Amino acid sequence: MSETKIPYKIYLEEQEMPKAWYNLRADMKNKPAPLLNPGTHQPMTAQELSGVFCEELVQQELDNDNAFIEIPAEIRDFYKMYRPSPLVRAYCLEKKLDTPAKIYYKFEGNNTSGSHKLNSAIAQAYYAKKQGLKGVTTETGAGQWGTALSMACSYFELDCKVFMVKVSYEQKPFRREVMRTYGASVTPSPSMETEVGRKINAEHPGTTGSLGCAISEAVEAAVTREGYRYVLGSVLNQVLLHQSVIGLETKAALDKYGIKPDMIIGCAGGGSNLGGLIAPFMGEKLRGEADYRIIAVEPASCPSLTRGVYAYDFCDTGMVCPLAKMYTLGCDFIPSPNHAGGLRYHGMSSILSQLYDDGFMEAVSVKQTEVFEAAEMFARVEGILPAPESSHAIRVAIDEAMKCKETGEEKTIVFGLTGTGYFDLVAYEKYHNGQMDDYIPTDEDLAVYRAKLPKI
Amino acid sequence: MSETKIPYKIYLEEQEMPKAWYNLRADMKNKPAPLLNPGTHQPMTAQELSGVFCEELVQQELDNDNAFIEIPAEIRDFYKMYRPSPLVRAYCLEKKLDTPAKIYYKFEGNNTSGSHKLNSAIAQAYYAKKQGLKGVTTETGAGQWGTALSMACSYFELDCKVFMVKVSYEQKPFRREVMRTYGASVTPSPSMETEVGRKINAEHPGTTGSLGCAISEAVEAAVTREGYRYVLGSVLNQVLLHQSVIGLETKAALDKYGIKPDMIIGCAGGGSNLGGLIAPFMGEKLRGEADYRIIAVEPASCPSLTRGVYAYDFCDTGMVCPLAKMYTLGCDFIPSPNHAGGLRYHGMSSILSQLYDDGFMEAVSVKQTEVFEAAEMFARVEGILPAPESSHAIRVAIDEAMKCKETGEEKTIVFGLTGTGYFDLVAYEKYHNGQMDDYIPTDEDLAVYRAKLPKI
Repeated sequence: MSETKIPYKIYLEEQEMPKAWYNLRADMKNKPAPLLNPGTHQPMTAQELSGVFCEELVQQELDNDNAFIEIPAEIRDFYKMYRPSPLVRAYCLEKKLDTPAKIYYKFEGNNTSGSHKLNSAIAQAYYAKKQGLKGVTTETGAGQWGTALSMACSYFELDCKVFMVKVSYEQKPFRREVMRTYGASVTPSPSMETEVGRKINAEHPGTTGSLGCAISEAVEAAVTREGYRYVLGSVLNQVLLHQSVIGLETKAALDKYGIKPDMIIGCAGGGSNLGGLIAPFMGEKLRGEADYRIIAVEPASCPSLTRGVYAYDFCDTGMVCPLAKMYTLGCDFIPSPNHAGGLRYHGMSSILSQLYDDGFMEAVSVKQTEVFEAAEMFARVEGILPAPESSHAIRVAIDEAMKCKETGEEKTIVFGLTGTGYFDLVAYEKYHNGQMDDYIPTDEDLAVYRAKLPKI
Repeated sequence: MSETKIPYKIYLEEQEMPKAWYNLRADMKNKPAPLLNPGTHQPMTAQELSGVFCEELVQQELDNDNAFIEIPAEIRDFYKMYRPSPLVRAYCLEKKLDTPAKIYYKFEGNNTSGSHKLNSAIAQAYYAKKQGLKGVTTETGAGQWGTALSMACSYFELDCKVFMVKVSYEQKPFRREVMRTYGASVTPSPSMETEVGRKINAEHPGTTGSLGCAISEAVEAAVTREGYRYVLGSVLNQVLLHQSVIGLETKAALDKYGIKPDMIIGCAGGGSNLGGLIAPFMGEKLRGEADYRIIAVEPASCPSLTRGVYAYDFCDTGMVCPLAKMYTLGCDFIPSPNHAGGLRYHGMSSILSQLYDDGFMEAVSVKQTEVFEAAEMFARVEGILPAPESSHAIRVAIDEAMKCKETGEEKTIVFGLTGTGYFDLVAYEKYHNGQMDDYIPTDEDLAVYRAKLPKI
């Protein structure tokens, strides 16, 4: 098909939307390492996991074999309200960069949660409802995941209890108010509502909280209440499974126009967006059917893939969660408070960690001022104000497009634009006012946390 | 075509997008009254207007004859970045209301300005660029229009100077920051930069400003600078012309599925959204080809159509602008500061005023707590957090759907969902906290302003 025929935005028809999620693990020779019981260091059984997670989600978490898992009709109906998301040809960015590269981005921000998180939130809420539960608990940092989950719970009329990192609760009242609009209850973490919260408050009076600590509280709140389970917005296998809808739509849209990407770029915090975006492409790569460069982009201030170690670690600060084998900086690692660009989690999805360790993908880290520079350029030419997280991928897409300009190569670049930055304007303001710095942890900093990794 | 075939979202293909705007005035028997020179009370000539507005926009402002005006390719290219906007079938809202009515909404919020305002901003920036101007000036209240214009100016590399109502400047720093991201300069109004600003500051020390005052400043800044013109986001004929893209897309999407609406509902502040949404439908009605109920919804706290008078009035507080014949509450009217729901302009587009006066459309006013109640219900079932302005239309769409439930009629309702409420969470917070009241001006209040109308 000729170049000029490709529209600015490729939308799939409703009937072209995926009917099954793709489970990348089925095509992995080296499966991701199992979650371990933090007490016995033995693999968590389905029974153990189902105290924390919904039953059907436990099955999905443990399923390394089935390549496709049907998306229930109720979830597909919800997807139809905000999906398919557009695959956008970045004509204006290409023109601005004067590059021969062809740039596409899959834009997941056109829903009220403002990001891709809703794709898994609705799935997890559905299975909780199906199991007859009263509600779910979770944690949220910046608030994207909490917003997504509150929307999903509102749709299925489930109770939704969100532990929000205290500093975000106080600094991001608008996110909190969106969650309230959807009927969620939002508690600043660490709180006095849980044992782990009280303990952290006693040991660190005046703490503004962390994601790892909020996870501990949300898990405790779930396991100590009748009819509640815990849900998580990233890292887990089940979340990457649900997020495969991003990659499946992307691939279907590209296939429709006969486009084969050379590289696929995504930002990586816990890995949910990247894992979902690359899933079907990585599948082809693992099966030897096609080759792609796959690039994970992380912040230089929280560099789990590029400077972490591949080891078993706790998922949370309170160490109440199972252990996961992953690229990690240590579960106590918290990036500098000057880091405004999201992607603050200390570890990385086990699936992506294994794929990275096996050499199937690359990782690069970028400094936050460079990220905001890319974000602002992108906003001006493409008209979308990107989330700081998403802008990590923009940065590297621009860098790769500029390499094409030097070499004259007409490479096709696809990147994930995970969300919008409407609730991140404090960070943009810092950038405009020249108050943003580029903190990078030293080797000595990292060694401190690494020394505390559990010995397994 | 059978009911079940209608998707949740109807997207036009790129090639189905409108190539010309529709100029409703061509089909009006009673043309809208001309703008008058505030000194001579004679109709403004093209020459007079072109001191304030771009030349081609002046032609559009005065053109009562040409039914279609081609959309330049450069503007159509920009439209392709965020248009076509989806026409959404509100299946979930219908289910929640348990109504036999079929509800559709045209959603204009999927762009970074968060509203339909971008449709005219890009057109006005284009003509300014084409004329070789350096930049444009404007005013903004809540910030939607200023954001849209800053995006448009950034795209065409024009200087953009925004006078932002002081109270919004201080209370909405995020909107200001988005405008800065797009390179606009934003000045709180009343400022000390203009003669009218200095005068208002001297007469009303400590004033937090008003839209009418910011308009006066923006106009003065444009006419006193070399290479600048003033642009306005609503009320004017040219703006309604550009916004006809909303209605044209809506009609094309409905026609594609053989759907004929019974009623079309839009919120009305200055009239830009409503005028655009209804344009092709009203055209059919004026030509006697079809009949539709067309309903303008305004806030009970600023009821220009339902309680104003049809008379010549100033468009701005400083009385530097031309006079327009419109339904107006008087140019000094400012709704209660407790009014959080937008749509605060004292007057109404001359086109819509004439159509209303001729009986071609209805108007209703709604209280703001009822508006937020509708907004929250809509957010929960349809997943989109609506702007307070847009929620006026939601309120009446729900009311009409509930009437259908009583009568059993399967009416087809189309309403305009003009934008998202991400920057309106202070208002939502007020609503959640029970701090919102339903101010309605008394007849005595209105009489005071009415007495000050110019005698023409």
